[in-house]
Amino acid sequence: MSATSAQSDRVSPISTNRSDGKATQRLAQWTAQLAWQDVPAAVRHEAKRALVNYAAVALAGCADPTVDKAVRTYCRFSADERAGIIGRRERTDMLNAAALNAMSANVFDFDDTHIPTIIHPTAPVAAALFALAQTQPITGEAFLLAFIAGVEVECRIGNAVSPEHYQRGWHITSTCGVFGAAAAVACALRLNAQQTAWALGNASVQTGGLVETLGTMSKSISVGNAARNGLLAALLAADDFSGPDAPLEGARGFLRVTAAQPDVAALTHALGQEWALLSNTYKPYPCGVVLNPVIDACLDLRRDARWTLDDIERVDLTGHPLLRERTDRPDVRSGRESQVSAQHAVAVTLATGKAGLAQFSDSAVADERLRAFGARLRFIDDASMQVEAAHVTVVLRSGETAERRIHAARGSLAAPLADVELATKLRELAAYGGSGVAAQPLIDALWRFDSAADAGAFMRLACADATA
Amino acid sequence: MSATSAQSDRVSPISTNRSDGKATQRLAQWTAQLAWQDVPAAVRHEAKRALVNYAAVALAGCADPTVDKAVRTYCRFSADERAGIIGRRERTDMLNAAALNAMSANVFDFDDTHIPTIIHPTAPVAAALFALAQTQPITGEAFLLAFIAGVEVECRIGNAVSPEHYQRGWHITSTCGVFGAAAAVACALRLNAQQTAWALGNASVQTGGLVETLGTMSKSISVGNAARNGLLAALLAADDFSGPDAPLEGARGFLRVTAAQPDVAALTHALGQEWALLSNTYKPYPCGVVLNPVIDACLDLRRDARWTLDDIERVDLTGHPLLRERTDRPDVRSGRESQVSAQHAVAVTLATGKAGLAQFSDSAVADERLRAFGARLRFIDDASMQVEAAHVTVVLRSGETAERRIHAARGSLAAPLADVELATKLRELAAYGGSGVAAQPLIDALWRFDSAADAGAFMRLACADATA
Repeated sequence: MSATSAQSDRVSPISTNRSDGKATQRLAQWTAQLAWQDVPAAVRHEAKRALVNYAAVALAGCADPTVDKAVRTYCRFSADERAGIIGRRERTDMLNAAALNAMSANVFDFDDTHIPTIIHPTAPVAAALFALAQTQPITGEAFLLAFIAGVEVECRIGNAVSPEHYQRGWHITSTCGVFGAAAAVACALRLNAQQTAWALGNASVQTGGLVETLGTMSKSISVGNAARNGLLAALLAADDFSGPDAPLEGARGFLRVTAAQPDVAALTHALGQEWALLSNTYKPYPCGVVLNPVIDACLDLRRDARWTLDDIERVDLTGHPLLRERTDRPDVRSGRESQVSAQHAVAVTLATGKAGLAQFSDSAVADERLRAFGARLRFIDDASMQVEAAHVTVVLRSGETAERRIHAARGSLAAPLADVELATKLRELAAYGGSGVAAQPLIDALWRFDSAADAGAFMRLACADATA
Repeated sequence: MSATSAQSDRVSPISTNRSDGKATQRLAQWTAQLAWQDVPAAVRHEAKRALVNYAAVALAGCADPTVDKAVRTYCRFSADERAGIIGRRERTDMLNAAALNAMSANVFDFDDTHIPTIIHPTAPVAAALFALAQTQPITGEAFLLAFIAGVEVECRIGNAVSPEHYQRGWHITSTCGVFGAAAAVACALRLNAQQTAWALGNASVQTGGLVETLGTMSKSISVGNAARNGLLAALLAADDFSGPDAPLEGARGFLRVTAAQPDVAALTHALGQEWALLSNTYKPYPCGVVLNPVIDACLDLRRDARWTLDDIERVDLTGHPLLRERTDRPDVRSGRESQVSAQHAVAVTLATGKAGLAQFSDSAVADERLRAFGARLRFIDDASMQVEAAHVTVVLRSGETAERRIHAARGSLAAPLADVELATKLRELAAYGGSGVAAQPLIDALWRFDSAADAGAFMRLACADATA
């Protein structure tokens, strides 16, 4: 079905506005009939921004030991070499590529965040679509449309089970990502509404992922599975492999099984009018988001400074109590732990003027000078402040002070990263990952992705063999 | 590690008897150190019986449309042809084979039942092990040991989350099966305790499967995934792909995320002393278990009868109220529905003297004479009766009556199927499936499986190409 014919019989936004009944069927129908003309320009552009950020984090993570090990085992089971792995030379089949390219994009937790759900929405959806796009022709426009549909379905399901679902222990990026990947691939394959509903049913039995595994390699398996199994769910549905009528809202469907009080109406509320991608954000630093305003302030203070770390008597950190509760970690032992330590974040940014993956790595925390600095940090709670805000005061041994107040951290919805900042993130993380993949061609390709004749061509630029 | 060296440093049963702490680690240690000498003869024999039943149900289901479709899509992604698919000619890699051979064994819900949890324990575990055994040498004894370990871990996890887990909507065969497959493969690979715990962690992010999907093709995906992903979890763990310390009992581990009040102690209670396989049962008929005594009675009545269905005025069915609640379905439209219909079960067994898959198929329910008979059935509740019991009275138009009381249905724990009955089930279901695979060599091989030099050789007998 072409975008034009889909447009001609598409569902009016008004008719999809309410009612809990048949939510899966209505989501499926919306996905099957979504056309490029239905998507506002801001949403189309946000999809490109999400893909720039995706390429950045995938190139950063592509050589992580977790990904290395996964590649080793998964590629024992490659049916063919039709699909590439971002930043790497190995080639594999599309199911494996979907898994591995989702894993690498999420392994540092530096990927995007849908604010209402804390889902990292792009990794599972984009990885599934890029894998598919290497096996059959898909235009950039069709890719973006499918991506937008997938993220919408993924985040709406997340809305319906939040906040209980994640609090209970479900790794929501994994558990909802599989639906997003399934919907996106169904859209890209132009499955009909019934088949799209079956794709969601086939995805519903493949949701998994536990918060208990954060910080371990296991976590990456479920992120990879979200992409792989969502793709598989849609491929099966394309062959009429059938599922239940209500895999989401049914009495024993996904929503009620994984949340006691799901908001079923959230699945279809203002569908086609409100867009999940417009609540998507991109991290400027590889840290817990509550640290963002602190790092903003420290980088700014450092920029003008004529003092060094040794000149500092103490630093006062004023913020919402959540800042102290989440980040008061004075003596960290790993790069991962440093990403949620205010002591390390303040020390390393004031010392180096940088806040990238290198500053929050195992080798960075080994620096005794940074670790010793932790004792000079003082938290001051101010419950009247927003979580996106912070006030940092540097008190020098000389008695002088310098201070900065941040009202809305970079990367928050109120102060989103600019396009140029996302491009810089891609350049920096591509260099960090060490794949040798050139960043600029990727950036150029993604900003004009809607006019690309072949979305799969992007992967030839993104894989290491292309630049050898 | 040989079985003998494992034996020399194995954990004493007493030391594993209680305490909730470190349950995953203790299960893993037990699995890693289990030796053939630790396993009572009755458990060893029950493992063989479970495999005979497994071969029967896999051969019955191997050509089901669900399996046909799954084979078509999954085999697009075959890395090699090292593994066979029971009853079929296609060959594929071990991950796909694990999935497909679990699907076919469960597609009719005619497989075994662990009574305390209603897990069908064998399909995921055996399918994963048979797939592995075709890629590396495993003796029959090592296979049986790994199978026993896998079923034990699977059912203990099921015990810990039952009954809430299934009631909530989790398809417990799928969700717990992945752990069983992971533990079994870890045991077969002789992974150490740490790696075995990682295998369980890698499995914990891959549990999925919803009761909502019963009766649809989607359900088979999660049963297949249980085998495939359990195998994958262990292969990753063998390469030190690491997981959390407490994927089961942790605050956001599998038990607490999928059950509000898990019985953590059930994971390790009397480990090595009480065996899950001794609570395993095998269905004599492809029906809901509450119908078993009814069918027993009807087959028995029919055996001596000189009347036909047309001579019957009415049938009175006396049983526990659950019998009526679960099976009062007078006008069924599909073979699947007929499997939980007392009206159909009574009519078809009194008419034909048989109660196999053919009697509970789509074509069987199309018989108008059987459907019309439904109006002549009367339920009489008797809450004092056991669920395993039933009383059937046939009232003829002549005024004569015939009746039978069944105290413990065939296939219940109190009246288990004899070995010879399991062998007959295998012969009948092999014929029903139509694969052309000869049943007797399978039966012979399984009864002496503990002395087999190569467990994988069984698959050469069980696949259709072997008999071509």
